[in-house]
Amino acid sequence: MKKITLLLATTALCSGLFAQTTVKLPAPRKDAAMPLYQALQQRASVRDFQTKEISDQTLSDLLWAAVGINREDGRLTAPTAMNTQEIRLYVCRADGAYEYVAKDNSLVKLSAKDVRKDIAGGQGSVADAPVFLVIVSDLNKYRRQDEMSKRFGAIDCGYVSQNICLASVALGLATVPRAGMDEEVLRKELGLQDGQIPMINHPVGYKK
Amino acid sequence: MKKITLLLATTALCSGLFAQTTVKLPAPRKDAAMPLYQALQQRASVRDFQTKEISDQTLSDLLWAAVGINREDGRLTAPTAMNTQEIRLYVCRADGAYEYVAKDNSLVKLSAKDVRKDIAGGQGSVADAPVFLVIVSDLNKYRRQDEMSKRFGAIDCGYVSQNICLASVALGLATVPRAGMDEEVLRKELGLQDGQIPMINHPVGYKK
Repeated sequence: MKKITLLLATTALCSGLFAQTTVKLPAPRKDAAMPLYQALQQRASVRDFQTKEISDQTLSDLLWAAVGINREDGRLTAPTAMNTQEIRLYVCRADGAYEYVAKDNSLVKLSAKDVRKDIAGGQGSVADAPVFLVIVSDLNKYRRQDEMSKRFGAIDCGYVSQNICLASVALGLATVPRAGMDEEVLRKELGLQDGQIPMINHPVGYKK
Repeated sequence: MKKITLLLATTALCSGLFAQTTVKLPAPRKDAAMPLYQALQQRASVRDFQTKEISDQTLSDLLWAAVGINREDGRLTAPTAMNTQEIRLYVCRADGAYEYVAKDNSLVKLSAKDVRKDIAGGQGSVADAPVFLVIVSDLNKYRRQDEMSKRFGAIDCGYVSQNICLASVALGLATVPRAGMDEEVLRKELGLQDGQIPMINHPVGYKK
């Protein structure tokens, strides 16, 4: 009996230690009025940000535009090769790093570390952004990891990244797609496996 | 004197033979009213098209959205890695194949051949589309052709492809990004060099 109690207690402790905190986001509004063509006209890379926070509502609106579900069968705002849906989107802010889960409209906390400076690297001017989005292509979703799956994983990252560029404009935010980041730190804090490749990051915030 | 005349005549003849026909497009209107978020909600791959033609005005609107110039310094609606601007966009229709030249808002004719069936391949349902756009990444614009430039060339293709997906919705058109195409035929008819890689094609037309 003592053994079973101990086992239960240990299990509870372990699951407590490794429990993921899930942040439920407000439902995305999808009602920003800006015409697509106006967003295209204003699309530009911005590298200087205020430290002003982004509300959870605005973040939810942005994440849905990036790679949210736009049909009842679970298909997305961004196409993916053969509907592989291999793109993972991570949200990094002062209070830690999260993965966006589109079907629950939630953020699953993966790390309490603020990795924004590890993403910004030497490019100090972007480090003030309150949020960094990191786009990861999960090549494990393809049968083989070869030249073509690498190409598809990169193209599919581009779809999501352009959604972030355009939605940022429509939401009054600023961003820039960047390739540079400390991949080693991100691999550790986001718990990335081999074949899950950080492709592009987006500092997002209000223009200075 | 005779020699010079002959030389001039030969030059004129040769430049005549190799002269490229340029089609000036109407200025893009950039005024489609659809909000970005509505375009994101309606973004979906369509594979059945009417044979109905697309007007030059609508084509101009679409091409500008894809990879047009949106600032006085020549920067584009789609970001490119380190502003490499390595994406080339080709327009293939019944009367031949053209390259889109954003700065002149024109189409330069490269071939009189209708290559749409060579792009559609076995996927007959898309072959009715009046226009196929072909996105080519010109990796020669990078200092080296390595793993990273291949990745950037593919990501940058994704930006342009998503612009085409979203602008098609806003213009009442339908499209699907496809990777399959007869690369050998396209290399010949579009005059592609080594390092210029056809990445994605888009049949574009009106939904059946």
